Amino acid sequence: MSTTADRRAAAAAKCLTLDNMNPNIKVMEYAVRGPLVIRAGEIAHVYDRGSSCRCGGKMSHVGQHESEYQSDGVRRARAAGHSGRGNRKRAAKLSLSLQVLALVSLPQLFDDPRFPDDVKQRAQAVLDGCRGQSVGSYTDSPGIEIIRRHVAQYISRRDGQPADWQDVILSAGASDGIKSVLKLLIEDVDGKKPGVLIPIPQYPLYSASLAEFNMEQIGYYLDESKQWGLPISELERSITEARKHCNPRAIVIINPGNPTGQVLTKENIQDIIKFAHREKLFLFADEVYQDNVYAEGSKFYSFKKVLVEMGEPYKSMELASFMSCSKGYMGECGLRGGYSEVINLDPGVKAMLHKSISAMLCPTVLGQTVMDCVVNPPQPGEPSYEQFSREKQSVLDSLKQRAKMVADTFNSIEGMSCNPVQGAMYAFPQMKLPAKAIAKAKAEGKCPSVLYAFELLERTGICIVPGAGFGQVPGTYHFRTTILPQPEKLKAMLEKFREFHEEFLAKYK
Amino acid sequence: MSTTADRRAAAAAKCLTLDNMNPNIKVMEYAVRGPLVIRAGEIAHVYDRGSSCRCGGKMSHVGQHESEYQSDGVRRARAAGHSGRGNRKRAAKLSLSLQVLALVSLPQLFDDPRFPDDVKQRAQAVLDGCRGQSVGSYTDSPGIEIIRRHVAQYISRRDGQPADWQDVILSAGASDGIKSVLKLLIEDVDGKKPGVLIPIPQYPLYSASLAEFNMEQIGYYLDESKQWGLPISELERSITEARKHCNPRAIVIINPGNPTGQVLTKENIQDIIKFAHREKLFLFADEVYQDNVYAEGSKFYSFKKVLVEMGEPYKSMELASFMSCSKGYMGECGLRGGYSEVINLDPGVKAMLHKSISAMLCPTVLGQTVMDCVVNPPQPGEPSYEQFSREKQSVLDSLKQRAKMVADTFNSIEGMSCNPVQGAMYAFPQMKLPAKAIAKAKAEGKCPSVLYAFELLERTGICIVPGAGFGQVPGTYHFRTTILPQPEKLKAMLEKFREFHEEFLAKYK
Repeated sequence: MSTTADRRAAAAAKCLTLDNMNPNIKVMEYAVRGPLVIRAGEIAHVYDRGSSCRCGGKMSHVGQHESEYQSDGVRRARAAGHSGRGNRKRAAKLSLSLQVLALVSLPQLFDDPRFPDDVKQRAQAVLDGCRGQSVGSYTDSPGIEIIRRHVAQYISRRDGQPADWQDVILSAGASDGIKSVLKLLIEDVDGKKPGVLIPIPQYPLYSASLAEFNMEQIGYYLDESKQWGLPISELERSITEARKHCNPRAIVIINPGNPTGQVLTKENIQDIIKFAHREKLFLFADEVYQDNVYAEGSKFYSFKKVLVEMGEPYKSMELASFMSCSKGYMGECGLRGGYSEVINLDPGVKAMLHKSISAMLCPTVLGQTVMDCVVNPPQPGEPSYEQFSREKQSVLDSLKQRAKMVADTFNSIEGMSCNPVQGAMYAFPQMKLPAKAIAKAKAEGKCPSVLYAFELLERTGICIVPGAGFGQVPGTYHFRTTILPQPEKLKAMLEKFREFHEEFLAKYK
Repeated sequence: MSTTADRRAAAAAKCLTLDNMNPNIKVMEYAVRGPLVIRAGEIAHVYDRGSSCRCGGKMSHVGQHESEYQSDGVRRARAAGHSGRGNRKRAAKLSLSLQVLALVSLPQLFDDPRFPDDVKQRAQAVLDGCRGQSVGSYTDSPGIEIIRRHVAQYISRRDGQPADWQDVILSAGASDGIKSVLKLLIEDVDGKKPGVLIPIPQYPLYSASLAEFNMEQIGYYLDESKQWGLPISELERSITEARKHCNPRAIVIINPGNPTGQVLTKENIQDIIKFAHREKLFLFADEVYQDNVYAEGSKFYSFKKVLVEMGEPYKSMELASFMSCSKGYMGECGLRGGYSEVINLDPGVKAMLHKSISAMLCPTVLGQTVMDCVVNPPQPGEPSYEQFSREKQSVLDSLKQRAKMVADTFNSIEGMSCNPVQGAMYAFPQMKLPAKAIAKAKAEGKCPSVLYAFELLERTGICIVPGAGFGQVPGTYHFRTTILPQPEKLKAMLEKFREFHEEFLAKYK
């Protein structure tokens, strides 16, 4: 960063400077891709270029964006892995979404007998929905009709409640859909900015988007002592305070939680819906981890299902729920597929939503295709069913095992505590940091969780995201780590982590 | 649309209504996906469902979004077409981008001898740039490094001037990149809104994005009598008027022009750059049609090349130029690949740009892959070179022939005139409409070009975009049509068009 004087000098020459650029973008933060991740990338780059490794060659996790463990981990966990050079030959069999992608990209492959018939039918259904039978054509802005219909069928099966395909909008990942709906709410009323309740800790897409849209972030704290549950009294506290200076219009719930890994109970969801109704809030249900539930006794309930089953007046509430092909057991995050189901929208507003997305033409057709694979998996009796089920179960079993391993390990480290990872793909342990470390961090103007994460990275190559990026109760320090590295790597990483932590405590004693 | 009273009643029940939603989205318009296109879709739907056709079965162009002709047309024009069910067997050979997509999606196919070695090398380079050798992983937010390097090499070859890969940001189509840079400029100064000069006629992404961002649209008229040239006097007129009520910060130039099809001369570009320098404007060069230049004597010059060759002070100006895989000879618009090259940005602002795109994680990896194919085509001596060159030349020759056919036909119709289609993929003819038609349209509160387009659609199934969606000199009426249908279909369509136009003139005489 340059000084103010430097910037003034530059301003004489440049049209666009830090002094006259969009102030909302200046204040935006996006921790999972922030300075720490950039530094991790630099370190990885050095290793890629073949220089010596300070860590004895065990740095495989360095330079992975922490968030990108998601994809790699899920994919590596597959029984029949998709792999590139080197281990291509070892790949056991073709997997559904990859086969479908290859077929729709290059339909000449339909002649290849290695592709099962039901996979070909899936690919053909997508091509039939494309203009000119080509995934290279634009689609309707909300996506291909047959895929929107498959999404609605998926939701109906999941919830035992009807879903209307015309309420479904496909998007380039869930993030794209979330921003499209969120921006509808940008409107000051009586000079007050619109506000949105979001959990603390939260996924930083929300804080970043609210900053970009100049909307007010209204944080409500999840209760770490109650497995990151969501007490209604805390919602009431936060909205009451917020009403003094902004106009609360919506509430975001992330379930299963990111970064906190909790799975909400049905009763908790009912109470949240009642609260939102009382306070006249638009419901945003971020449910991208709906297929990632591991803990005994935990079960995923969609907000849509609970709200409809509660009957009137709740079943008429406005609700947007979001899903992605980046999570679950497929983890195809680089392909950018997602959907939103938006119900009970005012018809005029619905038309505006559709108009607003049309300026971006359409979400990537191959991302739409993968979303189709997620919502329309092979059924019993279809040729791909057995392999698909085996792969899926293997991924989910392995994630479950790792969820437990991660929480158990952090709980065994001195000064750390970690709630069970009931769902999603992360642990969010709390750590008691020595006073000297806290003082040093504050002297450097950073959160102690950031100081800790940088030291961890430099010393071990392990990249975590400091709790500061997600929000935490003042005076508490956390970090997010994924459960996605393969078990043997994860185990080695956790041991290295333990060693580092002990050294850190000794250093700042 | 509901009445105000209806909306008030709904407002009692809904959180979000037309009365309290984002006003910027309400005023947004996006003509190429507007009501006319929706109606065209409805008509196509009826035909899809097998009901009787009013037009004797010649309605193949109905229900194509007019803008979507682009992809379908380009793809159909290929010598070796990519096609689905029915004509799959007839496809002559595999094409570069489709082969690469299939390989990176399903690397098991590397064993298949039908894929040429250089295609495999391209696919392998992309996989090597992906974490875990998988396109399903997130990439860096600005895209895969090797592809950014290929883009920079492409620009260097094109311009004979160096390009820095770190100035290149990959995006989900050019639209995504344009919006990312444009939003940096959102900042009121001295109570004045930021303004952006855009051509009239313009591509509606610009008017829609400026409306969404609450920025001021400053239209400058292209000179239809001079082949849609860009007179500096008109730029001066528009900015002088605009300075009274807003703060002009940038100028958008679309070259080759959309919807107007002109190709700017080097001298015109030099004058525009000098104007932008005098007025301290950020340059946006929308150059997505750079490979689509048909007319004798027309040549594409990039703003980057011209600006750098002009030397100081011009070569230090801030410039963003945009490219896409949706146009050119590949036309893979559904795959959402694009890039921006942003030069001479203040380093602090550059960091902010990178931060702001990080919240959307990364552009689709398969879109990045297709962009790589566009900028890194086979070279002489490589196995794919001959087929690729043949396919490319065949597409471009056919487009050139159609560009001439379209302009010639419209010029031969009574009351129509059309500038030569020097480049891009559209004709934008002017039509003299009868006074009675104009009066009727005005009585209905619509632009006569819209009335004309709806009647054309209902009567013939042909979908054009009325000039009103792009902007036109008051009192003149135009429409945009693509040059993309196959020659025989295009010819039949143009004849149908001629018949309709004569009937229309007679009807309103």
